[in-house]
Amino acid sequence: MQGRKVIITGVPGVGKTTVVNEALKKLKSEGVVYQSINFGTFMFDVAKSDNVVQDRDQMRNLDRAVQKHLQQRAAQEIAKVTGNVLIDTHASVKTPKGYLAGLPEWVLREIMPDVIVLVETDDDQILMRRLNDETRARDKEGSRAIGEHQQFNRSIAAAYAMITGCTVKIVINADFLLERAADDMANVLR
Amino acid sequence: MQGRKVIITGVPGVGKTTVVNEALKKLKSEGVVYQSINFGTFMFDVAKSDNVVQDRDQMRNLDRAVQKHLQQRAAQEIAKVTGNVLIDTHASVKTPKGYLAGLPEWVLREIMPDVIVLVETDDDQILMRRLNDETRARDKEGSRAIGEHQQFNRSIAAAYAMITGCTVKIVINADFLLERAADDMANVLR
Amino acid sequence: MQGRKVIITGVPGVGKTTVVNEALKKLKSEGVVYQSINFGTFMFDVAKSDNVVQDRDQMRNLDRAVQKHLQQRAAQEIAKVTGNVLIDTHASVKTPKGYLAGLPEWVLREIMPDVIVLVETDDDQILMRRLNDETRARDKEGSRAIGEHQQFNRSIAAAYAMITGCTVKIVINADFLLERAADDMANVLR
Repeated sequence: MQGRKVIITGVPGVGKTTVVNEALKKLKSEGVVYQSINFGTFMFDVAKSDNVVQDRDQMRNLDRAVQKHLQQRAAQEIAKVTGNVLIDTHASVKTPKGYLAGLPEWVLREIMPDVIVLVETDDDQILMRRLNDETRARDKEGSRAIGEHQQFNRSIAAAYAMITGCTVKIVINADFLLERAADDMANVLR
Repeated sequence: MQGRKVIITGVPGVGKTTVVNEALKKLKSEGVVYQSINFGTFMFDVAKSDNVVQDRDQMRNLDRAVQKHLQQRAAQEIAKVTGNVLIDTHASVKTPKGYLAGLPEWVLREIMPDVIVLVETDDDQILMRRLNDETRARDKEGSRAIGEHQQFNRSIAAAYAMITGCTVKIVINADFLLERAADDMANVLR
Repeated sequence: MQGRKVIITGVPGVGKTTVVNEALKKLKSEGVVYQSINFGTFMFDVAKSDNVVQDRDQMRNLDRAVQKHLQQRAAQEIAKVTGNVLIDTHASVKTPKGYLAGLPEWVLREIMPDVIVLVETDDDQILMRRLNDETRARDKEGSRAIGEHQQFNRSIAAAYAMITGCTVKIVINADFLLERAADDMANVLR
């Protein structure tokens, strides 16, 4: 049987991975299993096996047409995976030239996800989590900019829903309420 | 002559039908006539005549591909209707798995509406209308959740505008100002 | 070499042209050159050379199918222009029947822009600029309506990003900070 394809998104620092891992733990005991795929890593693997790049650094400097081709190839491979798949990526990526769609049309039409999850929380909570996370060097931005990014993600997710017919689920990962976020996520995946 | 296709949307409890009926009364005296179609009912009729379902309850449990096919078939039939058509549906539907596009691409490309109307009002007014309407059993949600839904509808309506070239008109149905909402709606339909 | 295609948008009165001109001055000294195209003017020129219209007034009363054809023709011609191109248009246009997509799908798929810039500022600043500009007769609207329009532009720009893979850059043109807006714009164009 064809499994479900769930795309998980959220701005950096929102705690996407933590919520997903907690949810998957809950589901495992029920016999619900998902294969986790990181879109960027998957795309690199496709690029390498297609001999387009040798190392990951080269991924950043690809010509736009090549980049697009690789995204589509990766999406086609993901579409072939059987069973339930959880795809970790971004609704949009903030770059110096502006917001870039994490799931452009040519990716969406291949994957045709069942659900896109937006993991969100209060802008200021995200700011504090970033400031307290010394393990990663992230671009500095204030909570207003974080709010703008989260809003853009909601807008672009609406466009994704129109093209694919998937649902768009907002899961709030608030401070001190991880358990609740994990429950909400598990309900989406169940 | 080909008539106009106007799609009317709004979250449950906003008073969409009341505004439309008032507007149609005004227009009737001017000789402007619209045929009203409820998208869900129309889709069920198509499904029944195609022998896909026997009763309306079966509509809720259709396979995703069948659902998509039926939506498209219904949209094709609506596109054939001559004269002015008013289509009652939702910009997005709130489900346990998240927001679902009321007008996915395969519906829009068939209908190619002239206008999509978003009937809106203050989130709290909608909450109060729902609490006071005992005739319908609706899922409970707070005014913040209603606001989120209205915002999502605006976002997805923007995507609809890009695909079809239709206009997106916001008509406010505020407490005590039904007359004004009906005038605004009539101006869209006129 | 194929140049970059940058689309500049912003609600009336936000100071789009001023920001662009300042940025282009900065870039000129660096040898970065852009050809500026006004989408509306360009479309009129195409319509005239195709003998669809004789004068600009006729552009306002075109049949929807003709309008669509002309938009697409203009976009095709813009796509052929070599070197860097800056396209001045609107993310959405406010009409009596609602918001109209400035860049419907059939335009975007031809131009395939690299960047769409949204020039924005505080709603009330835009209102004051409009009130103080006596050289243009603009439709009157309050700052809340301006805010709604700016929000709609962000939403529809997200949909544009999904279809084209372009970035969406927000450039704030705040009172007293034109220099900063011009720097931000120059960074996008550089």
